[in-house]
Amino acid sequence: MATASAQNVEFVRTGYGKNIVKVLYIRREGIHHYIIELKADVELTLKSRKDYLTGDNSDIIPTDTIKNTVHALAKLKGVKTIEQFSLDICHHFLTSFNHVLRAKVYMEEAPWRKLEKNGAEHAHAFIFSPEAWRFCDVEQNLNGAPVVHSGMKDMKVLKTTQSGFVGFLRDRFTTLQEAKDRCFCTSVYARWRYNKVQNIDFDAAWKCVKETIIEKFAGPYDRGEYSPSVQKTLYDTQVLVLDRVPEVEEIEIIMPNQHYFTIDMTKMGLTNKDEVLLPLDSPSGNITGTVRRKQLAKL
Amino acid sequence: MATASAQNVEFVRTGYGKNIVKVLYIRREGIHHYIIELKADVELTLKSRKDYLTGDNSDIIPTDTIKNTVHALAKLKGVKTIEQFSLDICHHFLTSFNHVLRAKVYMEEAPWRKLEKNGAEHAHAFIFSPEAWRFCDVEQNLNGAPVVHSGMKDMKVLKTTQSGFVGFLRDRFTTLQEAKDRCFCTSVYARWRYNKVQNIDFDAAWKCVKETIIEKFAGPYDRGEYSPSVQKTLYDTQVLVLDRVPEVEEIEIIMPNQHYFTIDMTKMGLTNKDEVLLPLDSPSGNITGTVRRKQLAKL
Amino acid sequence: MATASAQNVEFVRTGYGKNIVKVLYIRREGIHHYIIELKADVELTLKSRKDYLTGDNSDIIPTDTIKNTVHALAKLKGVKTIEQFSLDICHHFLTSFNHVLRAKVYMEEAPWRKLEKNGAEHAHAFIFSPEAWRFCDVEQNLNGAPVVHSGMKDMKVLKTTQSGFVGFLRDRFTTLQEAKDRCFCTSVYARWRYNKVQNIDFDAAWKCVKETIIEKFAGPYDRGEYSPSVQKTLYDTQVLVLDRVPEVEEIEIIMPNQHYFTIDMTKMGLTNKDEVLLPLDSPSGNITGTVRRKQLAKL
Amino acid sequence: MATASAQNVEFVRTGYGKNIVKVLYIRREGIHHYIIELKADVELTLKSRKDYLTGDNSDIIPTDTIKNTVHALAKLKGVKTIEQFSLDICHHFLTSFNHVLRAKVYMEEAPWRKLEKNGAEHAHAFIFSPEAWRFCDVEQNLNGAPVVHSGMKDMKVLKTTQSGFVGFLRDRFTTLQEAKDRCFCTSVYARWRYNKVQNIDFDAAWKCVKETIIEKFAGPYDRGEYSPSVQKTLYDTQVLVLDRVPEVEEIEIIMPNQHYFTIDMTKMGLTNKDEVLLPLDSPSGNITGTVRRKQLAKL
Repeated sequence: MATASAQNVEFVRTGYGKNIVKVLYIRREGIHHYIIELKADVELTLKSRKDYLTGDNSDIIPTDTIKNTVHALAKLKGVKTIEQFSLDICHHFLTSFNHVLRAKVYMEEAPWRKLEKNGAEHAHAFIFSPEAWRFCDVEQNLNGAPVVHSGMKDMKVLKTTQSGFVGFLRDRFTTLQEAKDRCFCTSVYARWRYNKVQNIDFDAAWKCVKETIIEKFAGPYDRGEYSPSVQKTLYDTQVLVLDRVPEVEEIEIIMPNQHYFTIDMTKMGLTNKDEVLLPLDSPSGNITGTVRRKQLAKL
Repeated sequence: MATASAQNVEFVRTGYGKNIVKVLYIRREGIHHYIIELKADVELTLKSRKDYLTGDNSDIIPTDTIKNTVHALAKLKGVKTIEQFSLDICHHFLTSFNHVLRAKVYMEEAPWRKLEKNGAEHAHAFIFSPEAWRFCDVEQNLNGAPVVHSGMKDMKVLKTTQSGFVGFLRDRFTTLQEAKDRCFCTSVYARWRYNKVQNIDFDAAWKCVKETIIEKFAGPYDRGEYSPSVQKTLYDTQVLVLDRVPEVEEIEIIMPNQHYFTIDMTKMGLTNKDEVLLPLDSPSGNITGTVRRKQLAKL
Repeated sequence: MATASAQNVEFVRTGYGKNIVKVLYIRREGIHHYIIELKADVELTLKSRKDYLTGDNSDIIPTDTIKNTVHALAKLKGVKTIEQFSLDICHHFLTSFNHVLRAKVYMEEAPWRKLEKNGAEHAHAFIFSPEAWRFCDVEQNLNGAPVVHSGMKDMKVLKTTQSGFVGFLRDRFTTLQEAKDRCFCTSVYARWRYNKVQNIDFDAAWKCVKETIIEKFAGPYDRGEYSPSVQKTLYDTQVLVLDRVPEVEEIEIIMPNQHYFTIDMTKMGLTNKDEVLLPLDSPSGNITGTVRRKQLAKL
Repeated sequence: MATASAQNVEFVRTGYGKNIVKVLYIRREGIHHYIIELKADVELTLKSRKDYLTGDNSDIIPTDTIKNTVHALAKLKGVKTIEQFSLDICHHFLTSFNHVLRAKVYMEEAPWRKLEKNGAEHAHAFIFSPEAWRFCDVEQNLNGAPVVHSGMKDMKVLKTTQSGFVGFLRDRFTTLQEAKDRCFCTSVYARWRYNKVQNIDFDAAWKCVKETIIEKFAGPYDRGEYSPSVQKTLYDTQVLVLDRVPEVEEIEIIMPNQHYFTIDMTKMGLTNKDEVLLPLDSPSGNITGTVRRKQLAKL
């Protein structure tokens, strides 16, 4: 029955691999130790589908081997950045086998930072500092160039003023009041594509994007910068990133609007002058946009 | 500075909306009550980008209004299925405004089921029964037909035999032993696209897909069915779904291989005959495939 | 410095062990397989504190050995119930060593159930069915009898009527309206102590407590049972459990009140007759009580 | 039936309240804004149990009122520290009513910190910096003095050397090798009781405990400090805390041992010199100890 039906179907996509392959890589320079802890998802697409069709496993590189390979490459190549290590993994599978059509790696780095005191770094002790998470993904096809994205997630920022939202459309379901001065809190997600693969300082690029996002959100330290909408702040950030980091070709940012509402205390006979706010778990606004360098062909 | 740079960039994509809009919808038929609890993410794309470019909010339907609209439509239209309600929401935004280019709704249903005893249902009491989660997404462009996907996630199943993995490729990094009889545990994710929008019994289709997945995994109740690989089981399931549910055009399934390893007790002087296994948190294998009905144009 | 200070301090409590020791135990009876998947936290307290005081590890049974011991005892003793297996683990440590003062085991069982169809069970295939989680803890001192608690958590139930809350105290901060008919949703936590250790059918007792909680919450299937407060429902449940299960000496129940509020749609010109409710993430009410059999000495 | 049984049972404990009451408190000093975001669980015990026994709600201060009260007190009293605010809440309930026997507040503070650049603080912008979470609990009985605990949780630290574990007890289930140089990672939980309530600088005390824990874990910045066991490091930390913070009477610390194992690559023909380690999700060791100032009465 199923066999008969199989003649009427076709594949759109196949892929398999190992998820959540963890590694702590330690580099020792004398008494100074440096670490990268990472978590990788690796996916391969093979030329044939006989494993799906007939249960013939002879082309399958086992997912256990994929895990071993990540471990072995960490030993053999080292881990300088998650981007370079992801490139190494893709390269390995596409060059060691001739039946791997596509390799894809998603990698996250655990946010360890060295303990610091008065500007001095500890030789070998670290603290987990998840102000922002760094991730990347690399995808490469057989005979193709790798495509590298880097990203940042879960960076939560809040400002207590210099944000408003007025002049919006009203319909019969609109009950929102205009706000000239509100609290603005968001958890930033950003993901960008590089326009080259070699000779990029991935660490410097990531740090620059992060600082640009914070800078546009917060504005000058003494007076801030007014945000008329999440949309405007998001877009200004993207323009500034593309201005500052020439290796970035395209950037997506998602900025949820995590609401803090002033609690109405009039029924309790109290006047709350935006002193006591309620952090809302849900729902949240969600603003997104993807911007790229203008394509020359279109000019 | 940013203004100058803005001349050199272009939009790839914009969108905004409200995430995690929650609703409990109660339908009362005499003493019998029926509920659907849902969580919706709604995203709109507008014609103009002046909100991003200049902070002009006059085209923005506030995300607060989007939330209100979901609530109001639940009241006005009712909630029969999450698929139909998502269709209603898309329809509302595309017909109530002429500057909404695209509407997209992702919805999850909380797995409540009525209390049952000896085949009788309780009139109004429910238990949260998360054996599988149901979700859907509907996307519609201005002047276009809606595209409806339904899905299931987090359905965890396990069998203690009738699974093996042999005959795979070996290279220098392969240490895995062949296994003729192993434990197989997976947490199924499936998402399928319908080939029409009207006159579908979404409840029946969802139930049929769920039962087909379980049936192919478990096999006959007395003896099971041998799985030579996750790939083969996944594909056989897809073929059977397309065979049984004519409204499904395409189906993606992801089956992680959540490993249970027999614990080696030889160093403790014990012989463990696959009685005591270690459930692994990570890593897990990850097998995926998307299959569709053969396209006539290609025949 | 620290050494000097050490003369001025004393221990209140010490303990160490291994957390999250996982086991899948498979029992095979011909073609029929039965499983218990568990997660154990084991803690020991030793006679001496020289490991804390001087770094002398000679009394320490390594936490790695504790993990191995759980695995080995699963092989040697089998796992009939998590309660019995926890008793076995405590017994092992208190009888194999003479410097273990106290052993404590907390154990959770993964909610697998056999696939069923028309009343027939599958021979070896299971589905993860987390309607309620079962746990236990056993604590035993050297030369003492073990104390056994069993428990249930995360059992979420909801009823759409037969709940109210009126006649409560009002002060200047009270804004709540009286409700004669409201939605009542809770996630039940219950933990009870047995008055003996041997000859208990732990499975039957657990099942009876679970069914009693559901029965008191839901009431008769055709008309339900009115709850004037969470407190009353909680207490009535406890009395009924103690009435039905003679081996239970004392029972604690926690019933959060997970709020669902009727959405006010008057500003949108709509009348919401308790059809569309908002599930609140937070805050939640929290009601608790512990009740035991009356102590004879006190009569 | 239940009524009959009720004569044979007695209460051990009752309590009710509101959990996860959230507040963002903003204090403005000119252009400089300061925030505390908190989450509170408040529990009261009343004199009578007639709500449990008969459904008479007339003594119940509704949990909704408890939530309102937290909001109102934030407005009326301000929020300087979570400890002081918790004391204020307990005081309110015990003095505003004469039928509240006990009030208990557990509070967590969200780890916001002001953006900083070159030592300068931003006027009103913050980043979520969860290196460690601060919490407290305050419990007070009618006519009694409040008992204040503060605590810290989820502070994850790791060092790549200066940790070992040798000389431990071996039995038939021991397979662990001695380790003279290992990676040591833990997620610190600490909770301490103050010996007074007034005139404590809760911020300074918390900061000092945090820094002491880090200092004992990491040792001098150039060479570290050898840890012969988690037990020894935990105890040395406690002694040093009691030495440095005279207001702390007793301190509990829990230090899980989150394992990182060197991956054996011999089967792959590679020699891994502790460069590539596997972070284990589970199980983890778990070491705990509670230490207090020596009680004079016992000398």
